Amino acid sequence: MSAHTVIFEPGERCVSVDDGTTLADAAALAGIALPLSCGGHGACGNCGVLVRADETPSRSGGKGWVLACQTRVHEDLVVDVGRAERLAAQLDESVSDADVRGFEAVPAGDGHPLVRALVVRMNPPTTQDNSPDLSRFRTALRKADPEPASISISLPTLQSLPGVLRRSGFEVEVVLADEGEVSRVLSVSGPGRGSPPRHGVAMDIGTTTVAGQLVDMTQAMSLGTAVHRNAQAQFGDDVISRILRSEEHPTGLRDLRASVLGTVNGLIRQLARSAGLRPTDIVAASIAGNATMTSFLLGIEAPAIRRAPHVPAAGDLPVFRAEEVGLEMNLAGAVYLHPAVSGFVGGDIVAGVLATGMDESADLSLLIDVGTNGEIVVGSSEWLTCCSCSAGPAFEGVGIEAGMQASRGAIEQVRYDASTDALELRVIGGGPPAGICGTGLLEALATLFEAGIIDRSGLFNADAPTRRLRQSGYQTEFVLVRQGELGAVLDIVLTQADVEHLIRSKAAVHAGITVLLRALGLRAEQIAKVYIAGGFGAHLNLEAAVKLGLIPDVPAERIEYAGNSSLRGACASLMSRAARERVSRIAQSMTYLELSGDPTFMDEYVASMFLPHTDLSRFPSVRCWRRRSQASVGQSRR
Amino acid sequence: MSAHTVIFEPGERCVSVDDGTTLADAAALAGIALPLSCGGHGACGNCGVLVRADETPSRSGGKGWVLACQTRVHEDLVVDVGRAERLAAQLDESVSDADVRGFEAVPAGDGHPLVRALVVRMNPPTTQDNSPDLSRFRTALRKADPEPASISISLPTLQSLPGVLRRSGFEVEVVLADEGEVSRVLSVSGPGRGSPPRHGVAMDIGTTTVAGQLVDMTQAMSLGTAVHRNAQAQFGDDVISRILRSEEHPTGLRDLRASVLGTVNGLIRQLARSAGLRPTDIVAASIAGNATMTSFLLGIEAPAIRRAPHVPAAGDLPVFRAEEVGLEMNLAGAVYLHPAVSGFVGGDIVAGVLATGMDESADLSLLIDVGTNGEIVVGSSEWLTCCSCSAGPAFEGVGIEAGMQASRGAIEQVRYDASTDALELRVIGGGPPAGICGTGLLEALATLFEAGIIDRSGLFNADAPTRRLRQSGYQTEFVLVRQGELGAVLDIVLTQADVEHLIRSKAAVHAGITVLLRALGLRAEQIAKVYIAGGFGAHLNLEAAVKLGLIPDVPAERIEYAGNSSLRGACASLMSRAARERVSRIAQSMTYLELSGDPTFMDEYVASMFLPHTDLSRFPSVRCWRRRSQASVGQSRR
Repeated sequence: MSAHTVIFEPGERCVSVDDGTTLADAAALAGIALPLSCGGHGACGNCGVLVRADETPSRSGGKGWVLACQTRVHEDLVVDVGRAERLAAQLDESVSDADVRGFEAVPAGDGHPLVRALVVRMNPPTTQDNSPDLSRFRTALRKADPEPASISISLPTLQSLPGVLRRSGFEVEVVLADEGEVSRVLSVSGPGRGSPPRHGVAMDIGTTTVAGQLVDMTQAMSLGTAVHRNAQAQFGDDVISRILRSEEHPTGLRDLRASVLGTVNGLIRQLARSAGLRPTDIVAASIAGNATMTSFLLGIEAPAIRRAPHVPAAGDLPVFRAEEVGLEMNLAGAVYLHPAVSGFVGGDIVAGVLATGMDESADLSLLIDVGTNGEIVVGSSEWLTCCSCSAGPAFEGVGIEAGMQASRGAIEQVRYDASTDALELRVIGGGPPAGICGTGLLEALATLFEAGIIDRSGLFNADAPTRRLRQSGYQTEFVLVRQGELGAVLDIVLTQADVEHLIRSKAAVHAGITVLLRALGLRAEQIAKVYIAGGFGAHLNLEAAVKLGLIPDVPAERIEYAGNSSLRGACASLMSRAARERVSRIAQSMTYLELSGDPTFMDEYVASMFLPHTDLSRFPSVRCWRRRSQASVGQSRR
Repeated sequence: MSAHTVIFEPGERCVSVDDGTTLADAAALAGIALPLSCGGHGACGNCGVLVRADETPSRSGGKGWVLACQTRVHEDLVVDVGRAERLAAQLDESVSDADVRGFEAVPAGDGHPLVRALVVRMNPPTTQDNSPDLSRFRTALRKADPEPASISISLPTLQSLPGVLRRSGFEVEVVLADEGEVSRVLSVSGPGRGSPPRHGVAMDIGTTTVAGQLVDMTQAMSLGTAVHRNAQAQFGDDVISRILRSEEHPTGLRDLRASVLGTVNGLIRQLARSAGLRPTDIVAASIAGNATMTSFLLGIEAPAIRRAPHVPAAGDLPVFRAEEVGLEMNLAGAVYLHPAVSGFVGGDIVAGVLATGMDESADLSLLIDVGTNGEIVVGSSEWLTCCSCSAGPAFEGVGIEAGMQASRGAIEQVRYDASTDALELRVIGGGPPAGICGTGLLEALATLFEAGIIDRSGLFNADAPTRRLRQSGYQTEFVLVRQGELGAVLDIVLTQADVEHLIRSKAAVHAGITVLLRALGLRAEQIAKVYIAGGFGAHLNLEAAVKLGLIPDVPAERIEYAGNSSLRGACASLMSRAARERVSRIAQSMTYLELSGDPTFMDEYVASMFLPHTDLSRFPSVRCWRRRSQASVGQSRR
């Protein structure tokens, strides 16, 4: 096979590849991470690169722009990857001042966090009481902590046990991991050797976003939160693209695992550094992720998730050692993973149910988690049923022209004043706006719908009395912030395509809710509590969510924004054995309804593509509000 | 610090060491294993080396002969280590045709060997039955094997589970290790992929000798036995020397561990090769060793064994993975270690009790295990009490001029004919004699005592009518075989010092038995069964053992030679869960009597230094035999 030289610009990075290699693989070889959002299937266009005009490879069409994932190298090339790299950097931006608010309070727990330290005292051996060290230690440990059925101790710990017991006068500090049926001894040391390890991390691993929280488990105190794009997104925006990647690419599974581990370990480092700790001070991790993320984090192949009946590798998982998983914390530390219910309702949703407490309530509750997938759970302490729908990551800011996650610079609140054609904005961090996050998008959509600038079918109204609508290329866009305004370095716009993405997302979620409730013979009025969760940001406008038809139109006091309920649930599991036991019960008892098996889902989806819905009778409060709103058009409002 | 060059001959092996390094450490650095039988304390003389006369280091006395362990290097030296190396090689000789007879029969077991394979069938998932793979697998495994409380599965096995289940149509072969409260999954594979792993190894790790047996666990069939000197003996002949070594030498514990692992792994390789297997085909190891050997095998420090109250690191130990322990078999394989009762009654004795079945007998039994330490157990199904005495390795052939272990070339039977001054010998393997093993030593002592050549105090009778007694240097010796006779390449002799060593060994054992029985208020006549065990060889002459006062004088039909009962017990534990449960019960219920706390022990020891004993009334059958014997002196006997 002949070899060709590919030079990537800017920077003149040079690599030699075999004939027929894709430009995407050549770039990877050169250490360049292109954003393969669709998994390298030529669908998203994010890996567009510019091949120098006179050197365009003969088999690729068009001018110089080609998709790196679809273009094969058949001659020496010079390729400009600047645009794709900037896009990747934007997708991958680090968020050190994450907006995971509402996490100041850590649940107190039940005195049995995932890992905890105990002081264990023994009588020193005598001729009359000469039992072996390990037997003496086990007996004393059982007395100090009567619950565990069985105690496991590693050889390295056992190797040092006789010496530690004697140097400490048979009073030691034992660090124990609760592995369910087994209590694992992490370390045994003399007391007073600095403070015992007490730091744990809770993680929500989403398809698009990974959020973490560092916790002092003995004080039940939050030491910080952080959010980061999941670097795995370079291999596909959704789980299906990534499973395909794992099946089709020889190093696919390894790459997927390494990339998500990179993100998780980066967050661990960042959280530790912010709190003045070393990563090795962290001895426990409680992780909630969807079934695919959990599989790939563990390096488990997941083709069965993609195909009916969509079976995940594991429900209840063993508690692993950090070293086995590859987490860069204390290598002997314990890693608890929340179990999946099905391939499309994962441990993140189980953790969310735990966080809301709906599994312990006598009343009927509904949990709606809007992430890259939308998951819906309905039930009570008696029963729980769930389903999943493909919402797409629009409300996480992905695929939206100016979209970004809920972090510094993101517009999180928007109110349009029709009388002045002005916008009232609130930007996370208070500085210049850089983009718009989920809560901002939802409000923008609602306020422009209210003002008649977006109509019920989601189209911009060209006749609307505003100078903010403009044509850009083939589509209409609404200018939220002009370059220079408020210090913005670029125009921040909402395009016609953005509106369509958002409406498709909300339609999928709404259709899922409708089909699930109907399958169970329930009406929205019967729901005592609606929890809405997801990566929107801290200040979700619930009224706007109802106005747009994202959630059922029930009285406002019944609706609660649960924020990142997966992360809150993971934190509760970190802190309490009772919570971990509830998690097992939730996962085992929850029934999964397969929407693809329901013939009415597609009809409901199409009907939900209107704002708020084709059938306005389902949204009495919105109908009423639209009447008031239309009456007030033209009046000045703050 | 200045450096000196030391050249070791023969072979001109050269090493550079810091000033003050001992010659023993310099030799070790040059890859030369000197026999530090006393642990490098200058006591045994086995590490004697010849420093070239004109180069004798100024601070060492005498001519050229110095003890390598006591001599420090202060100048460049040329050292002849030939003698010490030959001695080490002799101590370390490999025995491929081990005489571990009586091991053809492997106990049938209870269908629950330490590791076993099961076929597990599942229904493939459907939309109605869509539980996760691991849950499905666990449920099916519990059905196939209802006993285990909990199933543990490693991440690598889990990683391949979804693929294996699907490729095999949800019918798999599972290899399970029984870890007590937990069943650990070693592997899951499609059926019909060659034969399932079924090979296990039983090991008796003695202070001086390591014996192993390879077993087909499904067929309950022995595939061979092998014995080897414990290479750890280079660091000291007894456990106290080795514990001192581990405490005093910076790499002591590491060296001790590596050397015994080397011996064990050598035996595993040898057993596998002889049976046409690879070491990785061996998935289970059942190991019985004394508390110090077990500690050092695991790399656990053992100073507490040396000091009262002589506490071992562990009684019941976890089942380890071979990789953790460092055994070169299947790295995921299970390693079961027999628990110790006390620092000086180890897992080898617990295994011995198991092998004899005395823990299940209503009658009173006595087990006497003569190894480097002598251990004595008395009891029944109701209770068990034990003690230990320092016997020394004389009956294993160590410290005896012509001593060797029970292997090819060892004289194992000796009968002296006073009328012809001739000896009737039986040599293991039938070839030329090379030395004499424990059974041979015992018979030689008895037959020479019987003939009046050795008197009751153990001294050679210079007036005895034999031409085989001669002076050699400062001591008398009896020539068993002359150079050239029967093809022997050297004289094979029994020296006065040898006789003293053997009598000291038997005196220690006999004093232990006496003190133990007295402490329990028992008389020898009450013992229904006496088991004698140890590394003597296959054909122990029980009459001779009684004649010499090694074991109590009870009717012959009550005495049974149990051979290497530790190895037989280890084999039973390999084959059966019931046996492993009995092992735990034995170790937990056995009471240890500390002889050093008994003021009468030393008196009994001194009184036992006669043949058979100071008090002949304790040996009625010997008294009677001596009368007959003396009457027959001079008559011709075959």
